[in-house]
Amino acid sequence: MKNDMLIETFPNPHPLRPYIIEHVVHEFTSMCPKTGQPDFAQLRIRYIAGDSCIELKSLKLYLQQFRSKGIFYEDITNVILDDLVTSMNPSWLQIQSTWSVRGGIHSVITAQHGQADPLSEPRL
Amino acid sequence: MKNDMLIETFPNPHPLRPYIIEHVVHEFTSMCPKTGQPDFAQLRIRYIAGDSCIELKSLKLYLQQFRSKGIFYEDITNVILDDLVTSMNPSWLQIQSTWSVRGGIHSVITAQHGQADPLSEPRL
Amino acid sequence: MKNDMLIETFPNPHPLRPYIIEHVVHEFTSMCPKTGQPDFAQLRIRYIAGDSCIELKSLKLYLQQFRSKGIFYEDITNVILDDLVTSMNPSWLQIQSTWSVRGGIHSVITAQHGQADPLSEPRL
Amino acid sequence: MKNDMLIETFPNPHPLRPYIIEHVVHEFTSMCPKTGQPDFAQLRIRYIAGDSCIELKSLKLYLQQFRSKGIFYEDITNVILDDLVTSMNPSWLQIQSTWSVRGGIHSVITAQHGQADPLSEPRL
Amino acid sequence: MKNDMLIETFPNPHPLRPYIIEHVVHEFTSMCPKTGQPDFAQLRIRYIAGDSCIELKSLKLYLQQFRSKGIFYEDITNVILDDLVTSMNPSWLQIQSTWSVRGGIHSVITAQHGQADPLSEPRL
Amino acid sequence: MKNDMLIETFPNPHPLRPYIIEHVVHEFTSMCPKTGQPDFAQLRIRYIAGDSCIELKSLKLYLQQFRSKGIFYEDITNVILDDLVTSMNPSWLQIQSTWSVRGGIHSVITAQHGQADPLSEPRL
Amino acid sequence: MKNDMLIETFPNPHPLRPYIIEHVVHEFTSMCPKTGQPDFAQLRIRYIAGDSCIELKSLKLYLQQFRSKGIFYEDITNVILDDLVTSMNPSWLQIQSTWSVRGGIHSVITAQHGQADPLSEPRL
Amino acid sequence: MKNDMLIETFPNPHPLRPYIIEHVVHEFTSMCPKTGQPDFAQLRIRYIAGDSCIELKSLKLYLQQFRSKGIFYEDITNVILDDLVTSMNPSWLQIQSTWSVRGGIHSVITAQHGQADPLSEPRL
Amino acid sequence: MKNDMLIETFPNPHPLRPYIIEHVVHEFTSMCPKTGQPDFAQLRIRYIAGDSCIELKSLKLYLQQFRSKGIFYEDITNVILDDLVTSMNPSWLQIQSTWSVRGGIHSVITAQHGQADPLSEPRL
Amino acid sequence: MKNDMLIETFPNPHPLRPYIIEHVVHEFTSMCPKTGQPDFAQLRIRYIAGDSCIELKSLKLYLQQFRSKGIFYEDITNVILDDLVTSMNPSWLQIQSTWSVRGGIHSVITAQHGQADPLSEPRL
Repeated sequence: MKNDMLIETFPNPHPLRPYIIEHVVHEFTSMCPKTGQPDFAQLRIRYIAGDSCIELKSLKLYLQQFRSKGIFYEDITNVILDDLVTSMNPSWLQIQSTWSVRGGIHSVITAQHGQADPLSEPRL
Repeated sequence: MKNDMLIETFPNPHPLRPYIIEHVVHEFTSMCPKTGQPDFAQLRIRYIAGDSCIELKSLKLYLQQFRSKGIFYEDITNVILDDLVTSMNPSWLQIQSTWSVRGGIHSVITAQHGQADPLSEPRL
Repeated sequence: MKNDMLIETFPNPHPLRPYIIEHVVHEFTSMCPKTGQPDFAQLRIRYIAGDSCIELKSLKLYLQQFRSKGIFYEDITNVILDDLVTSMNPSWLQIQSTWSVRGGIHSVITAQHGQADPLSEPRL
Repeated sequence: MKNDMLIETFPNPHPLRPYIIEHVVHEFTSMCPKTGQPDFAQLRIRYIAGDSCIELKSLKLYLQQFRSKGIFYEDITNVILDDLVTSMNPSWLQIQSTWSVRGGIHSVITAQHGQADPLSEPRL
Repeated sequence: MKNDMLIETFPNPHPLRPYIIEHVVHEFTSMCPKTGQPDFAQLRIRYIAGDSCIELKSLKLYLQQFRSKGIFYEDITNVILDDLVTSMNPSWLQIQSTWSVRGGIHSVITAQHGQADPLSEPRL
Repeated sequence: MKNDMLIETFPNPHPLRPYIIEHVVHEFTSMCPKTGQPDFAQLRIRYIAGDSCIELKSLKLYLQQFRSKGIFYEDITNVILDDLVTSMNPSWLQIQSTWSVRGGIHSVITAQHGQADPLSEPRL
Repeated sequence: MKNDMLIETFPNPHPLRPYIIEHVVHEFTSMCPKTGQPDFAQLRIRYIAGDSCIELKSLKLYLQQFRSKGIFYEDITNVILDDLVTSMNPSWLQIQSTWSVRGGIHSVITAQHGQADPLSEPRL
Repeated sequence: MKNDMLIETFPNPHPLRPYIIEHVVHEFTSMCPKTGQPDFAQLRIRYIAGDSCIELKSLKLYLQQFRSKGIFYEDITNVILDDLVTSMNPSWLQIQSTWSVRGGIHSVITAQHGQADPLSEPRL
Repeated sequence: MKNDMLIETFPNPHPLRPYIIEHVVHEFTSMCPKTGQPDFAQLRIRYIAGDSCIELKSLKLYLQQFRSKGIFYEDITNVILDDLVTSMNPSWLQIQSTWSVRGGIHSVITAQHGQADPLSEPRL
Repeated sequence: MKNDMLIETFPNPHPLRPYIIEHVVHEFTSMCPKTGQPDFAQLRIRYIAGDSCIELKSLKLYLQQFRSKGIFYEDITNVILDDLVTSMNPSWLQIQSTWSVRGGIHSVITAQHGQADPLSEPRL
């Protein structure tokens, strides 16, 4: 996706130590391309930074651009993953989107970039 | 099972990246073949798509066909698993059905197709 | 509504003392008359009996008759209220139906027959 | 009911001040007189004592006598209420029994003896 | 507010009996007129109908019109209240909006039309 | 009870306005006078002060004196109520003790001094 | 208290209808005047506006002034109540502060200005 | 243990695919052999079937036989495990019993038969 | 620690099968050696027995001996671990103590004896 | 960071046995270096001690020094990790900070020092 509002980054203050950063977005909304109806989701973004970290305000503004876009659950999750990877080149990044109930069914999409080394990654 | 209403699919928008799709069905009901009484369950379907994904509305309609069918917990879970695998040939699919209390006992059936490679599968 | 399966009653074992009986039905389902799609609800029935009490198994079978009936939330709640009042003539009866999410909205309908005397009714 | 094991009491240590005593019994079980199957309930007994209070161990033993008795929800709740009132003559007593799910329905029965004066009773 | 999409109604199926209808909207969003940032809320609408009831789909579409409107919490709650009262003339209507956290503070606005008679209104 | 450690007070900083002060004590323990076994409770003390308020540290030390005292649930609740009333002469005071499970039963004792005027007391 | 940062207000957009506005402050902190240690609380402010409403950002900044002030629970709750009443002259205002555990005890202080007319106030 | 009521089985409808069946028994009760007092537990039985599955009604009746038997927590859990293994020869079976509080302590016993192959077993 | 009250054991009824026994102690209290103030904790003891099991009543009495002992969190957890290992020689034993909030901080100490073989140990 | 208040330690009472110590700090607050607004977090510190353990009161005072410091989420988590490692040289230490919602997003940062040997570390 070509987004007008870019994701900004700042230098990772502790680049030598791999550690996990998690941002949970409680207020994501987009549009269903089929019905034109709004969709609502919670996004959980977790990553191990390379040289740079996501700047939170630009993340918020970047995600607000989907407010009037029509795009499917599976697609949007991978698109945001790709945009985040391009913006800051993390060593590992996982995104999980949890969608509101539609027709008695709710959906959760989970995708990731890179493979966290279970030996070097902090355990939760 | 021969179902009149087929499960429809759409092309996986990101086929090169294995990622997990989860649909939680809150409103499943079928009939007990022994007593003729209704049964109620929550279904959790999780899969890594191959070339195609489940279309949600057809999934809903497919599952509604069980509303008047008499079938046991263990059987129905495996039948839905087989139907989903046939419809879209996923690289991995897991289904879990959680049933309402009967006689002070509630039941949970979990079956899967394929073996998710723990190295390539996103961790939850 | 003319129901083939009648609600049966048994004599109130303690008719001289007003007390509250509550039945919470976790597995109610009917059909939407507009879309033909299934609806799901939890029903809470509370009453102060007159001479007779609801027999539980017949209540279950009576409510199962709605499984294939098309009827709106507001209507069905009042219809069940009327049928229960006709069947056992309680001094007070309240029914509350809580419906599954549709289009991001869930609904709760509450109706009652008679006016519980706040002085004679057990407080909860 | 004629119970072999009587409910014992001890003198109310503060008879001049009306105050509320509540005992919540987590492990009550009796038998269904119709099916012969066990029933399980939680009992909540609340009262304002007159001259005497319930001795807890005798309450436990008294309630264990229902373990092999066949008796309906509505009846048993009123029987225990009567037995407690006879044993210790409280100025107010309320009993609430909450029963396990049967056929997708759970039940709550609430009965009381006397009328607590809302002006003299501690508010909860 | 002049809304292009009107709230539709249908005839109250039981107009002689006052009963409570509640719709809980989980997915409401509008814009902050000061910052231009999106706001998110849950709305709870409860009413006793006069001759007509709210049609749910038109309620959903009516509320979606606020998606791109800039309006304050206190104002929007009263505006929706006014629009609902105008549309269907209920004997009583209460609306409560619960807003997401902003600056470590979340807000709840509650307004109502008419005065429910505590004697004729079903108690919850 | 004659307690060596007295409850200290400090002057009510806003004596002209009746308002409610609540202290919830999570770590109360005493001894059962019958079995010699320890008892554990949570205490909730709520009051409208007269001229003086309870000093929290002295309350903690006062309550620790029960650590090795043998005393029944009903009695201890009233004794603490009396001691608090004597110490600071509140216009209203309520105490509620919630005790750990013994023999499958847990107990709650609620006593109060004075009658809060429902018109002048803040509603919760 | 003389505060450098004043609470700002804006005109009540619906002054003819009494309705309840509630702000829940999740991140309040002050200092204990006795020990010099930080205290933490959640504040719940509920009011029926007169001609003006609290502006949220100024409320946040006003409350941050207590970050380095030493003041007791009971006092601070009443001081904030007085400051809010002075700033916007509401017809009714209630404040409740819930404090973190200290010495195994947590506290809740509730104070209010004015007397809400239970007939004109929306019921919750 | 020699039980009069045998556990019945039915043929595994999908014997070629290893899948997990779980039954959670909410209403188990037995007797303490030392004190003669009733014990209460929740049982969780999970297994991968061989050629046969547990028939639910016979499981319920089998477990009711412990209602008047005196037997310790550790022993009963292993006895039921042995009886289930003998009845249906599963490839893996795990049983967990969670017991009510006695003397401020609650207990959980977990035993299993066979070793589930982590590669062939569905992951939860 | 030299304890006057010894931990008693009884023979493991199923010594050939490794299984997990867990006791959760809800009512543990000791003294802080620095301040002399009481401490409160929940203890979770889990073990795989060798030839003998912990007798529950003697465990309760053993733990009550800490009621008036001054000892730090880290020390007491290891002391109880040592005493239990000495008393019954388990093949594996883990103890976890969860302590009440002090100064806005709560603590959890976890220690174990032996190394459970993940292949022979029941999985939870 | 050069902190005036040092973290104090005391000798590990059981240095030969690796065990986990966890401190959960419920009341951490610092300042945002960008906006000057306060930030609030919960910190979870878990470690396996070497020769010395963290003294709790000095930990509390050390953390209070951040009350008026402006520092980012990612930085502060690593700074505290470094300070703790320097102070007591643990064999393993993990810190997790969970921050309040800002702009509809909350964040969790997790960093660790050393690599816990999964075979020697107590499992949770």
